[in-house]
Amino acid sequence: MVDGTTPGDRLDQQLDFLVEIDKLKTIVRASPIADGSRRENSGEHSWHLAMFALILADQAAPEVSIDRVIRMLLIHDIVEIDAGDFPIHEAHDEAAKEAAESAAAERLFGLLPADQGTGLRSLWEEFEAGDSPDARFARALDRCQPPLLNLASGGGSWILHNVTLENIDTRVGIPAKRGAPGLWDRVRHRILPFFQTN
Amino acid sequence: MVDGTTPGDRLDQQLDFLVEIDKLKTIVRASPIADGSRRENSGEHSWHLAMFALILADQAAPEVSIDRVIRMLLIHDIVEIDAGDFPIHEAHDEAAKEAAESAAAERLFGLLPADQGTGLRSLWEEFEAGDSPDARFARALDRCQPPLLNLASGGGSWILHNVTLENIDTRVGIPAKRGAPGLWDRVRHRILPFFQTN
Repeated sequence: MVDGTTPGDRLDQQLDFLVEIDKLKTIVRASPIADGSRRENSGEHSWHLAMFALILADQAAPEVSIDRVIRMLLIHDIVEIDAGDFPIHEAHDEAAKEAAESAAAERLFGLLPADQGTGLRSLWEEFEAGDSPDARFARALDRCQPPLLNLASGGGSWILHNVTLENIDTRVGIPAKRGAPGLWDRVRHRILPFFQTN
Repeated sequence: MVDGTTPGDRLDQQLDFLVEIDKLKTIVRASPIADGSRRENSGEHSWHLAMFALILADQAAPEVSIDRVIRMLLIHDIVEIDAGDFPIHEAHDEAAKEAAESAAAERLFGLLPADQGTGLRSLWEEFEAGDSPDARFARALDRCQPPLLNLASGGGSWILHNVTLENIDTRVGIPAKRGAPGLWDRVRHRILPFFQTN
């Protein structure tokens, strides 16, 4: 190999990375799973979001590549292994969050063979920036899934953080509408009765 | 729409399906997560396997489509919502398993708009049959992940089910070698010391 590693080293680096990212299953999020029995972890959340992309493909702008969005969503939370989860309805220092996540990306994607780590880090950075059509759609899905789980479980992180419909329209609605306007309309329609009666 | 549904009905069916499959996060498997703190659920397992496909793409035969394998792995366990998990190292009635999983596929993929449900059901059936290059690779990954988690956590389902290296070579090694021979060689090399000392 160009960089002096053998194909065997490459495979070992890949397997070490795959065992290391198992830790994403231990990162607990603010939203519960739909039956309300416990809070969701970021590993199963990433699976659920990839399923959202697969199933809701016809809600994306025509230039969106769904397979690329799926890859983006599979890796979008991996930095939480070191940086932890920053719940959307909880105040936090944005600069500190960015620094922690950037250091996490450096360490975690750095476990992979260089060509592969660089590619995935750049895909993650595209998600974070949220400017490309693929990233806008991926971010919209990441906003639309928690409200459906909160609704199914009777309030979830809305109750935990005293969230109002106005908070949701700002923190969730704006990025959701940017990437998937038709989807957000429907999700908002579903959650509206909760806020009218609670 | 051709079948008399409106675009709104279609989106509602898709959202109902996405909330329903949240239940996959409550299906507990035999293998633990890597830190040994609890057993893995089938939702986070599906995320992990999709990551295996993304990272280990160069272990696949040249004709394999990795994006198609990722989709296959995202949906491969959804039938467990109704049928439950059948651990590989536990005896079970194969005909009863097939009947339960087929009924589950009928109900669960049947929640989706017909065109989409039919497509995903056929992708799941391809995985189950295990004959196509994509399915062979997907099934090999599904065999290689649990040994790595058992090893990381100090034995996991091997201890639970008194598994020998001979059992592994038969139940895990044969399908793993069929779809990803180089990968299986390396995984077997990693787990060998466990069986030589336990």
